[in-house]
Amino acid sequence: MTDTIFGKILCGEIPADFVYEDEHAVAFADIDPKAPVHLLVIPREPLPSLKDAVQEDCALLGHLLHVCKVVAEEAGLDEGGYRVVTNIGEDGGQSVAHLHFHVLGGRTMQWPPG
Amino acid sequence: MTDTIFGKILCGEIPADFVYEDEHAVAFADIDPKAPVHLLVIPREPLPSLKDAVQEDCALLGHLLHVCKVVAEEAGLDEGGYRVVTNIGEDGGQSVAHLHFHVLGGRTMQWPPG
Repeated sequence: MTDTIFGKILCGEIPADFVYEDEHAVAFADIDPKAPVHLLVIPREPLPSLKDAVQEDCALLGHLLHVCKVVAEEAGLDEGGYRVVTNIGEDGGQSVAHLHFHVLGGRTMQWPPG
Repeated sequence: MTDTIFGKILCGEIPADFVYEDEHAVAFADIDPKAPVHLLVIPREPLPSLKDAVQEDCALLGHLLHVCKVVAEEAGLDEGGYRVVTNIGEDGGQSVAHLHFHVLGGRTMQWPPG
């Protein structure tokens, strides 16, 4: 659980300001933001990535996406729009082995998405 | 429901080869692929975008993400990795007003994600 930087944030070993938290998820700012608003939404459960999710994780996955929507709305992104991204493995560019969703907005996002 | 290209695909008005389909979701190749594998996962329900999702949509959202995982696995992306993206509104680059998830893999995805 504390093997990754997100695990350490969840257990309080590394400080972070949560912009959202509940029983299953927390959200905080990315330390290396790629847009005026760049938040991360992660589960408290240490699921490594989307490819490790099983059918039983669907409720958690849906909750995490809904939290993305909530934090984006609270950050004032609903009118302009935003992008939600999750990276899986090396080709995906996943840098931390703890499932996380990037919420990016406040600028026009380009296409392709990386 | 048939207002968008995805609505027309869902009702059969525009042909598409589904790589996955169930009661709630379908998946097919993006017509303008940005990676060797570029699939779209969409709900049959015409939810315009993630920002329009409400608490009651969490099960559907979780299911859609799980379908992304399944189609990525079936496309052989698990070992190399992949990226899952959803665009919301103008800044997000959303081009069709029907919720859809892009699944991209088969190459190294760059950062930032657009």
